[in-house]
Amino acid sequence: MFVHDTQLRVRYAEVDQMGYVYYGNYAQYFEVARVEALRSLGASYRDLENAGILMPVSHYSIDYIRPAHYDDALTIRLEVPELPRSKIVFLYTTFRGDEILNKARTDLVFLSADSMRVRRAPPAITEHLAPFYTKGTSKN
Amino acid sequence: MFVHDTQLRVRYAEVDQMGYVYYGNYAQYFEVARVEALRSLGASYRDLENAGILMPVSHYSIDYIRPAHYDDALTIRLEVPELPRSKIVFLYTTFRGDEILNKARTDLVFLSADSMRVRRAPPAITEHLAPFYTKGTSKN
Amino acid sequence: MFVHDTQLRVRYAEVDQMGYVYYGNYAQYFEVARVEALRSLGASYRDLENAGILMPVSHYSIDYIRPAHYDDALTIRLEVPELPRSKIVFLYTTFRGDEILNKARTDLVFLSADSMRVRRAPPAITEHLAPFYTKGTSKN
Amino acid sequence: MFVHDTQLRVRYAEVDQMGYVYYGNYAQYFEVARVEALRSLGASYRDLENAGILMPVSHYSIDYIRPAHYDDALTIRLEVPELPRSKIVFLYTTFRGDEILNKARTDLVFLSADSMRVRRAPPAITEHLAPFYTKGTSKN
Repeated sequence: MFVHDTQLRVRYAEVDQMGYVYYGNYAQYFEVARVEALRSLGASYRDLENAGILMPVSHYSIDYIRPAHYDDALTIRLEVPELPRSKIVFLYTTFRGDEILNKARTDLVFLSADSMRVRRAPPAITEHLAPFYTKGTSKN
Repeated sequence: MFVHDTQLRVRYAEVDQMGYVYYGNYAQYFEVARVEALRSLGASYRDLENAGILMPVSHYSIDYIRPAHYDDALTIRLEVPELPRSKIVFLYTTFRGDEILNKARTDLVFLSADSMRVRRAPPAITEHLAPFYTKGTSKN
Repeated sequence: MFVHDTQLRVRYAEVDQMGYVYYGNYAQYFEVARVEALRSLGASYRDLENAGILMPVSHYSIDYIRPAHYDDALTIRLEVPELPRSKIVFLYTTFRGDEILNKARTDLVFLSADSMRVRRAPPAITEHLAPFYTKGTSKN
Repeated sequence: MFVHDTQLRVRYAEVDQMGYVYYGNYAQYFEVARVEALRSLGASYRDLENAGILMPVSHYSIDYIRPAHYDDALTIRLEVPELPRSKIVFLYTTFRGDEILNKARTDLVFLSADSMRVRRAPPAITEHLAPFYTKGTSKN
């Protein structure tokens, strides 16, 4: 299975008056984690968009366990549980050191920008991911 | 059951380069809907916080059906499916006219600011909500 | 001179852990004020963009006098000090009741979306604004 | 003079439907640059706040020259033009490679959190900055 870690530092703007990262701001962190995970695979979300492939989010859910605070150094662990077809699922765990702060999931759909219709995952993604899901091997 | 509608206009800052409201920004819309729903009941989230009651979000999920665009006039329909105890559940449906754009849910926990421990929903909320859940009556 | 007031309520997400509206968030409020001011004139920024006219901001400045807090009801007073040519200047004053919280200015340039070159202000804007600047009269 | 560079990658959420970084989002980038510049000096904004010193922004101005786009790698060059007393001035230049995208300035005031009154810059800042302003020497 493909797993990737992204490091992030909490910005002042992202914290609310409880002193917590605002509950809506994790969606941005997970987007950064997706982009960096794809980049680590050699796939660029920017290039995908320029090639006419959009990836809107169709589902997002998050369970908050502990709050993150201003200036915390966070690790977002991202997993892709299975090879994508017309949809790609990402699972996230947010860590501060060894502490788990939350767990989340996003489902993204592959769309052709010209027709705005669902399409299959492009080779730019599946070819890079496939080695992580070959039967009988363990790449990560 | 308690139901409340809030009107919102999509801001330019909230739309991404797909021309969609960024998937993370609905969390803010739902927060506005919660605050306005409480206000319509005579309960102010600001007063609750000043009285030492925090309401962090413990769960958030959303299913995106259609995107919202810049300058769209949206209606957030909020429902409280049951009388809260130590947790309050809000259900949301985002409309543009008659079209449903997404459906979401948040769970919020009642915390005492001094002890940071879970507590029961304060009377400021339950007393105003109770009439909507009396058996055999229909207030909304 | 054209003057327009927009009402806004501070969102929880917009406040930082000092309990102040984050200094970067006023830019969004002023954008809302611009859009509502144009709408009041019968000009829609959305229609302008669809007609191929972009209005990027070339300058922004703000002097903060007092902070705004969560749930504050704010009034953004917007003024257009002179009829625009290839640039439009907006001046803003943020009020909470009678208190002035800050004063700001944005300069926006008119661009043709196809050439990305500067162009004159479109009639959709100047025709609606002109009556406010006719010599010897006072429309506002 | 003290000069510090911070690297940033533009997030999808930060770009508007013109494909530009939204004009209001640079304020966040400059905040990150301030925090990282202080950290490089051995001063932590988080520690300052915990020690009861707030630093609200009293003035912010920015001139936009070229837009930044999604996924751009930016460098924020921060300068502190003079040793702070009760106010600290930061100057910023945003680069994408060799291109200058914008130039900005913020003035921050030192406040005592308990009295909310203006105070002198704390030694935690001035002691680290002083060596950069000693007459006849050049530290940077």
